[in-house]
Amino acid sequence: MTAAYSTLERRFARIAAIQNALGILGWDSQTMMPDGAAPGRSEQIATLKVMAHEVIAAPDLGDLLEEAEVEAANDGADAWRRANLREMRRRWIHETAVPADLVEANSRAVSACEMAWRTARPASDFKALLPHLREVLALQRRIAVAKAEKLGTTPYDALVDLYDPGNRSARIDPLFDDLAAFLPGFTDAVLAHQAAQPPVVEPEGPFPLETQRALGVALMKAVGFDFHRGRLDVSAHPFCGGAAGDIRITTRYREDDFTSALMGVLHETGHAMYELNRPADWMNQPVGLARGMSVHESQSLIVEMQACRSPQFLHYAAPLLREAFGGEGPAWDADNLYRLYTRVRRDFIRVDADEVTYPAHVILRYRLERAMIAGDLEVEDLPGAWNEGMRALLGIVPPDDRRGCLQDIHWPGGAWGYFPSYTLGAMTAAQLFDAARTRVDGLESAISQGDFRPLVEWLKTNVHAWGSFHATDDLLTLATGRPLDAGVYKAHLRRRYLRDAE
Amino acid sequence: MTAAYSTLERRFARIAAIQNALGILGWDSQTMMPDGAAPGRSEQIATLKVMAHEVIAAPDLGDLLEEAEVEAANDGADAWRRANLREMRRRWIHETAVPADLVEANSRAVSACEMAWRTARPASDFKALLPHLREVLALQRRIAVAKAEKLGTTPYDALVDLYDPGNRSARIDPLFDDLAAFLPGFTDAVLAHQAAQPPVVEPEGPFPLETQRALGVALMKAVGFDFHRGRLDVSAHPFCGGAAGDIRITTRYREDDFTSALMGVLHETGHAMYELNRPADWMNQPVGLARGMSVHESQSLIVEMQACRSPQFLHYAAPLLREAFGGEGPAWDADNLYRLYTRVRRDFIRVDADEVTYPAHVILRYRLERAMIAGDLEVEDLPGAWNEGMRALLGIVPPDDRRGCLQDIHWPGGAWGYFPSYTLGAMTAAQLFDAARTRVDGLESAISQGDFRPLVEWLKTNVHAWGSFHATDDLLTLATGRPLDAGVYKAHLRRRYLRDAE
Repeated sequence: MTAAYSTLERRFARIAAIQNALGILGWDSQTMMPDGAAPGRSEQIATLKVMAHEVIAAPDLGDLLEEAEVEAANDGADAWRRANLREMRRRWIHETAVPADLVEANSRAVSACEMAWRTARPASDFKALLPHLREVLALQRRIAVAKAEKLGTTPYDALVDLYDPGNRSARIDPLFDDLAAFLPGFTDAVLAHQAAQPPVVEPEGPFPLETQRALGVALMKAVGFDFHRGRLDVSAHPFCGGAAGDIRITTRYREDDFTSALMGVLHETGHAMYELNRPADWMNQPVGLARGMSVHESQSLIVEMQACRSPQFLHYAAPLLREAFGGEGPAWDADNLYRLYTRVRRDFIRVDADEVTYPAHVILRYRLERAMIAGDLEVEDLPGAWNEGMRALLGIVPPDDRRGCLQDIHWPGGAWGYFPSYTLGAMTAAQLFDAARTRVDGLESAISQGDFRPLVEWLKTNVHAWGSFHATDDLLTLATGRPLDAGVYKAHLRRRYLRDAE
Repeated sequence: MTAAYSTLERRFARIAAIQNALGILGWDSQTMMPDGAAPGRSEQIATLKVMAHEVIAAPDLGDLLEEAEVEAANDGADAWRRANLREMRRRWIHETAVPADLVEANSRAVSACEMAWRTARPASDFKALLPHLREVLALQRRIAVAKAEKLGTTPYDALVDLYDPGNRSARIDPLFDDLAAFLPGFTDAVLAHQAAQPPVVEPEGPFPLETQRALGVALMKAVGFDFHRGRLDVSAHPFCGGAAGDIRITTRYREDDFTSALMGVLHETGHAMYELNRPADWMNQPVGLARGMSVHESQSLIVEMQACRSPQFLHYAAPLLREAFGGEGPAWDADNLYRLYTRVRRDFIRVDADEVTYPAHVILRYRLERAMIAGDLEVEDLPGAWNEGMRALLGIVPPDDRRGCLQDIHWPGGAWGYFPSYTLGAMTAAQLFDAARTRVDGLESAISQGDFRPLVEWLKTNVHAWGSFHATDDLLTLATGRPLDAGVYKAHLRRRYLRDAE
């Protein structure tokens, strides 16, 4: 190991420690912090972020990288160290490509825009948001151009790269175009099929919160969550956060509905398993981090969508749920619960969407944000373009902007380029699950007995333990035999939603 | 305001933000963190501490201080800014007087010694601790010498200065000698007096934890604790921590005894009120911090010992306690509860000691650690010196070192010079309370109705809002008309413990 490389490892370990501290502070903000402490907390978080940035933006870091890269090429450094250097450079580019005054201006604009959005959304007042969103977009374009120059990508792809390293529109377009052509007709077929079935009976509450929590904990343990290295708590917006080896997931409970909290816990547990099983030897180095948001989302969706919304698992879970809540009647039949958990509806709101209609929401946003970054769509034309897109992809038009282009925080919050990872994650989950069930004997029958070990072991070996070592498509090719492929995802949807029809 | 001074303010604000983050991480470690996360948390905390140290030890900071001090002297800077500079310099000396290799060696020796202590104490095995403690003492001596040179004090006083700024043995000695002469005879008299009274009847549990918690919360609110800026939680070792404007206190509950958790909550609430009421304009600057550990301890003891163990308060609280726990019989009589809460016993353990015997424990430790730092007492002679001191001050000799010189973590943990602040705090509390009740009409009768507002308002004005602006003795002189005086404390003890006898 060279001196330059060792220095870099120490610097990035320090960044990891700061990021871990930030993870705990962020968790605390959402779960424990008294409301009056918010301004102080912002100050703490801002300070720690600046200090992490200062480590990576240190004047000598570019030279150290170059030196270590040359040495690694000459001395036959092992593959993990080379991959670590590659990830260090990627993060260095993202952190240093944008001039400090632009970072500062963006941070201010995003704060103001988020604040405007918090009142504009409930009021369905797009005009109130417009000047703020225009400002945020203008700055995002400049950021995109600055990063694109260093990354050698298009501006929009430079934004995507922050969330989903190495991914490019040229890869996403054919996948999304394929889905966009498939989904409208498929959705019609599913809706017709479901309409012909007996109506879903909703279980009636109240469902005591303590029972919901105990069920969630039991299922987390079944999936393999280690409560010596993590917690389950309550927050307004569920998330998976915390620090390395200290993973904190949250949910929110409703007394009149247990279904969303339960699947929410399983979703976050999928994220958590990825974080808990990252490569131990590289835990505090860039190569030891999760591969990116689309792979991360695949890990939550493989647990929630692929495993736990399957008929196998829901037939196992139905009697447990009935007993836990003291339920009676047909609402608690396994088949009814399965149909409840796979019910498809056309709706305006992404976060409430089901597995079939969700991709349409994402494809719409992907196309719109790409057009805005490219300068092909101006912010003032967004509401019209949104409604047109909804009509084309989902066949419905929101009655107001609150249920249209104002619904998500991503754009006001400066997270441009993030949206595609939701649906890429869903597709990746389907492909990984398909490979796992084909390659691991008894995997599905284990799930039908509430045993997730075969699935999670396979994921640990094939995904989690690699961290950021492989590029995303390489990871998927090694695990499944091919890069991401819309065909597997479509086959999954057909099998699940039209199984009785075929 | 000068450029140098502004730069210093920014640097120290950054340190404050890091310290606040550390406060939340520390709280989390004791209350929420899963056990497997301890190594990662140590890493986060060590990293943040190093980063705070790097800010204050920056090569240009000494010059900036000098420049700002010269300018402040010339331009008639206001008194708060000058006091802020004074505190900046004091912290700078403490952080930079000790060479980095000595800091590092001390940190390693303290870790090893604490670990050895955790097994040596329950085994009462002083020999096992001896080499570690000798090493820690040797390093503490070197640290003391290094700081003394910059502070212009004796080595031991340089250690005290870290916890109780400006305090010196020459001030402490006469106060402690006075008490040491007073206490043995006084303790005899109190014990004889209490033996002649009807025996204390202990309330019988179980006392449900939720009831204890609700009572604690109600009393915290009565004292003025703002739950929008703080929390109450559970930890193995109660503390007051958290961040500026986000004060987190803890307690521990026992189902068979409510008395210690309840007084514990009130004690920590006293600390919390000081932190919550520090000067808002200087919250993130050195001059805005609490004045030191003896004043801090005075704020917890003024609430716990002076106000809440008073007959006035306990007569108010008795029927509330009886009702909350559904208690019956003479145990719940106000006078019985008062005698329970003021019962005096000679015992070996400091943390279990009562108001009367506690100072003897502290004076013993103060004399021993001063002798060890001065080289007048070697570590191997500690057990003998301890037992001699116990006999002289308390009239009892511990049967083993577990209940003797092994009982406290302070010396293995490197907190030399800390002990005196406990008793200085108790004396300060008595003096402040005496001034407050004399100067504020109706203060004691308010307390007898569970109303702490007159007391806390007076403390806010006379102590809390000053932060570190005044030197400790100036603060006390302004608030009470004189510097710290053992006479007031002795009068308080006489009044409380021999009231019926006089």
